[in-house]
Amino acid sequence: MIIFSGGTGTPKLLDGLREFLPPDELTIVVNTAEDLWVSGNLISPDLDTVLYLFSDQIDRKKWWGIESDTFRTHERMQELGIDEGMKLGDRDRSTHIIRSNLLRGGATLSEATEKLTSLFNIGAKILPMSDDHVSTYIETPEGTMHFQDFWVGKHGEPEVLGVDIRGVSDASIPKKVFEAFENDEQVLIGPSNPITSIGPIISLPGMKDLLKKKKVLALSPIIGNAPVSGPAGKLMQACGLEVSSVGVAEYYQDFLDAFIFDERDSADEYAFEKIGCRASRADTLMTSREKSMELAEIVLEIFDEMG
Amino acid sequence: MIIFSGGTGTPKLLDGLREFLPPDELTIVVNTAEDLWVSGNLISPDLDTVLYLFSDQIDRKKWWGIESDTFRTHERMQELGIDEGMKLGDRDRSTHIIRSNLLRGGATLSEATEKLTSLFNIGAKILPMSDDHVSTYIETPEGTMHFQDFWVGKHGEPEVLGVDIRGVSDASIPKKVFEAFENDEQVLIGPSNPITSIGPIISLPGMKDLLKKKKVLALSPIIGNAPVSGPAGKLMQACGLEVSSVGVAEYYQDFLDAFIFDERDSADEYAFEKIGCRASRADTLMTSREKSMELAEIVLEIFDEMG
Repeated sequence: MIIFSGGTGTPKLLDGLREFLPPDELTIVVNTAEDLWVSGNLISPDLDTVLYLFSDQIDRKKWWGIESDTFRTHERMQELGIDEGMKLGDRDRSTHIIRSNLLRGGATLSEATEKLTSLFNIGAKILPMSDDHVSTYIETPEGTMHFQDFWVGKHGEPEVLGVDIRGVSDASIPKKVFEAFENDEQVLIGPSNPITSIGPIISLPGMKDLLKKKKVLALSPIIGNAPVSGPAGKLMQACGLEVSSVGVAEYYQDFLDAFIFDERDSADEYAFEKIGCRASRADTLMTSREKSMELAEIVLEIFDEMG
Repeated sequence: MIIFSGGTGTPKLLDGLREFLPPDELTIVVNTAEDLWVSGNLISPDLDTVLYLFSDQIDRKKWWGIESDTFRTHERMQELGIDEGMKLGDRDRSTHIIRSNLLRGGATLSEATEKLTSLFNIGAKILPMSDDHVSTYIETPEGTMHFQDFWVGKHGEPEVLGVDIRGVSDASIPKKVFEAFENDEQVLIGPSNPITSIGPIISLPGMKDLLKKKKVLALSPIIGNAPVSGPAGKLMQACGLEVSSVGVAEYYQDFLDAFIFDERDSADEYAFEKIGCRASRADTLMTSREKSMELAEIVLEIFDEMG
């Protein structure tokens, strides 16, 4: 199974899926459009979360960073009145340094990520969506800013006027992602932010054509008219989409075969029929590992039914 | 007083001098030819040592790094089998990040250093010898390598065939160093490695002409035929100099007015007369803060006598 992932909702689902599928049946294609050079090294927030999940290092309270990490370097800068921009842990920082030293030595992000999965003894394939530089910028009344500055720096507060995924139309799908598509029929689009987490992946030139040939199941990160977490609502609205599960399914309609939306959602099932995908209700609020496993089982059942 | 400093012997003398002279009478011009980008940020070993000394952060056991620093990031890389090249502390790393973020933002090394002296509440002027990139390379039978790779990576073990201070003939003396020379008559060349610590400073175009107009007192880092610490002996030999106090004085003879060598040294005082400088014996082994202060008093007396 190929899974498209951002940094919060989908890793929780992956946490359940990996209980049922062996590592060599999991290929995670991870959004890199939120990557940012901070303090000399490349932070890839979504890749880091997926790497830490599969190596059992993830901080399960925050769903980013490493459990029980310390913040000595960051705190020292704070003492001196210097804002690092992101709260980077000491162990977390070593991941960024290893990645960036490889990049400085001429490796691609795919190669650097492969090295990290090997150092972390991860069996699943974790692949960046592209080796090219793609950056999501958010247009606000305060100016256009990198997604991380909007989300971490400004706490997602400014009004969103538009979203610009810079570089995506010139970015290539890496060889390893093509190889995964040759060998796998099932694609799962996790319950991540459709605009800034999944949007960059499906906007890569050629990606929609790849998806049209596959069995594609997507999960909604929206319940009612609000996202489970994060700024998806604001961003969908700015992109002219209805902030609802139906809006998410419409965004994916070119290649979508099946869809899971939350059982609390009042969405009209008829609306999904019009989009041309089968839709199922499920409890998508993954508030515990057990809930993640229950949702993973439903995902596997739906793929089974799709044959 | 202007003091030329490397990273070990001279800082110990500075530790004594700052007990007698107010900060605004101290200008330290620091060697930067051992600077190196490590893990994404610029390490300036000699600048860091001088900064940590004047901000009372220095680890007095090692005379580099910050006292009671932790090594979380470095140790995590070690656990993963990754050699960082230098043992960087977590607090120490924050200094490198602050410096490098300023450089990435367009600041000169002089400006970044001024910001660090201000963050550390240092009253003395601490100036890099140049804002231009100068790097000492050591030629060995194993190949030519950066000084840090020779000294830290290879523990100074390879035979030294030659020393190449790359970039120095195109490097400029910064404005703040010129200003110090306009306002100060006394120049102290500390007991640092003449080839790799003091050599780069005095090799800057125009520096010897500045020195010729000043009262210059140098201290020998050599006792007998061996340096007090570090690889000075090997390097002096490779540069065709006699490994002795006389060899050091000869290296500085174009601009040297007075010289201090160790009381244990059997050097013939007549040899210094021939070089044209007054020479004094003193206990130069600074094994404690008290010894540093005693030597600093002798330095001040000699400058006084020079009028």
